[in-house]
Amino acid sequence: MTGEAPPLVPGGIVGIVGGGQLGRMLALAAAQLGLHCHIYTSEENSPASAVASQTICAPYDDEQALGQFAAKVDVITYEFENIPLETIDFLSQRKPVRPSAHALDVAQDRLTEKTFIREIGIPVADFSTVNDLHSLQEAVAGLGTPCVLKTRHFGYDGKGQVLIQDSAQCKEAYTALEGAPAIAEAFVSFEREVSVLVSRFIDGAVVFYDPVENEHKNHILHRSYAPARLTTAERGAALSCGARLVEALDYVGLLAVELFVLPEGDSQEPHLLVNEIAPRVHNSGHWTQDACATSQFEQHIRAVCGWPSGDVMRHCDAVMTNLIGDDVERWHMMASEPACALLFTVRMIFARAVKWAT
Amino acid sequence: MTGEAPPLVPGGIVGIVGGGQLGRMLALAAAQLGLHCHIYTSEENSPASAVASQTICAPYDDEQALGQFAAKVDVITYEFENIPLETIDFLSQRKPVRPSAHALDVAQDRLTEKTFIREIGIPVADFSTVNDLHSLQEAVAGLGTPCVLKTRHFGYDGKGQVLIQDSAQCKEAYTALEGAPAIAEAFVSFEREVSVLVSRFIDGAVVFYDPVENEHKNHILHRSYAPARLTTAERGAALSCGARLVEALDYVGLLAVELFVLPEGDSQEPHLLVNEIAPRVHNSGHWTQDACATSQFEQHIRAVCGWPSGDVMRHCDAVMTNLIGDDVERWHMMASEPACALLFTVRMIFARAVKWAT
Repeated sequence: MTGEAPPLVPGGIVGIVGGGQLGRMLALAAAQLGLHCHIYTSEENSPASAVASQTICAPYDDEQALGQFAAKVDVITYEFENIPLETIDFLSQRKPVRPSAHALDVAQDRLTEKTFIREIGIPVADFSTVNDLHSLQEAVAGLGTPCVLKTRHFGYDGKGQVLIQDSAQCKEAYTALEGAPAIAEAFVSFEREVSVLVSRFIDGAVVFYDPVENEHKNHILHRSYAPARLTTAERGAALSCGARLVEALDYVGLLAVELFVLPEGDSQEPHLLVNEIAPRVHNSGHWTQDACATSQFEQHIRAVCGWPSGDVMRHCDAVMTNLIGDDVERWHMMASEPACALLFTVRMIFARAVKWAT
Repeated sequence: MTGEAPPLVPGGIVGIVGGGQLGRMLALAAAQLGLHCHIYTSEENSPASAVASQTICAPYDDEQALGQFAAKVDVITYEFENIPLETIDFLSQRKPVRPSAHALDVAQDRLTEKTFIREIGIPVADFSTVNDLHSLQEAVAGLGTPCVLKTRHFGYDGKGQVLIQDSAQCKEAYTALEGAPAIAEAFVSFEREVSVLVSRFIDGAVVFYDPVENEHKNHILHRSYAPARLTTAERGAALSCGARLVEALDYVGLLAVELFVLPEGDSQEPHLLVNEIAPRVHNSGHWTQDACATSQFEQHIRAVCGWPSGDVMRHCDAVMTNLIGDDVERWHMMASEPACALLFTVRMIFARAVKWAT
């Protein structure tokens, strides 16, 4: 459905495809706005189900269940990008789906994603398609070493990635991916990684959160610092990448853009590369719940429902820490730390500390 | 049950008696902390049910349903004070109920409440019991006019109150209350009304939010301003009233205390009277969701679950407006105002504007 529905009024129903932690937080934000949520998930007892009005638990290719889901909701969004494209296409025939299937299509495949980003004039790391061992060897010869072999689909937290430090490792690396379609990417020796959360509304308005700086541990997001340490020119360039992406995708909702900031070279121009995009709310945006009037979750729901933007000004500095493994045992101690908000999402815990302006 | 349970860990279940808007906001806060909520309510499709894991919908005197509810939850709280005391007594035999039945007992009856408050040394407006027309006439003779006749039970938003400006109006006033047990209270010509939200924890810790100033329209809360305009001495006296109340009640949870600030007299002492208390989260505390790291809802859940206090420092000024009747039509316009957060609770809408420190 391409026609625009009027803004959803309180009491309306938002359908969320996916029942994970981000879906749960979207459902909580929607509830604060007086909206109901229905969840569609293949998973029993999903985190989002516990806070939603209704849940349909069925496989993502069950057309009857998808039809029932679509019939009851007013607008549909999704909370992760590994939903079969056919599912979103099927739902799009029945109700407005925001962000669109097109955005999902681009983000699901590293090759499509990188090609799209480069085509709209935004720098990305050099890359080559890898279909077999021969094309990997050619790619490595072209890109030089070190470089990184990455599966095109279903990558997260460093999964599906192999670092190639020498062209002799090609065979071993290719075998590790078990024949999955892949790309080879030049290794980027970046100074820092930042993310831009950009939202776009039905009327075309584009609204940014302050970029944040991300710190990873073992390929998993460990900390996000708001604001990121960026020069004025770098900040402008990062936001501009975000704006071009949401406009080129005719995007509605919140989009997360991960960028690499490279060391300053001879040129005065900012050195930024886009690493990847996620057509959804993002772990690096949890701080917005404490340091902004409108969180990323509310902002996404507002956009999807045809509402105007909320106020996304950062009113204080914030640090978000992802508690992983044994860290989680520290929750009770952290619960009593000043200016520390804990965010439990059933499976993961994020600690968010804010620093008020003085 | 009087024995202390260990702190509830994420994944635990909080039972909430009452399914209204405040119950809904408690359930949302509990979900953010990784806790599940079960709702017990006599109302079909209650606002809280839409965001809770489970709901039992049954009358408040259905012992079988109450037993089933108690069996499944780890700790029980309530979201309004007009629950039959027998219900809470019944549940207290089975699981920890916080705040206790004693706090509810005191708050349910204006006579018990005023007597209790006065007995612990906190000033209240002069009052007399009214059981019949004769006792009303005696009370009015003693208190003078104007004075206010108020039902002992179930009063809210000015309901169950009659202003008596002349002793000749006694009969008419008494008739208006249809024989309900009542008290007569001296009319208080106050300068402003403030409320103190005070929380007390299982270990006895007492933690305050900044007092707020309330403005009523037609006896309904219209605006709350944080912070209230109080002198240092008035602020100290207001907080001290809150502390004495929670300690005297051996209270666990968040307690709302409404106070009248009287015009300054000859004496240097602050002139404060306690008007009433509510053993629960309160409409005058909605601003805490935007202007504090820990909202009143999270703070109540923390206390009830045996957690430590959150950080309740007010990091900016805030104004909360209750949108009543046609005001509600303005929601879409207000949704785009800067620094304005809207809080929809299905039946009521509160607009909350914050002013960041500059």
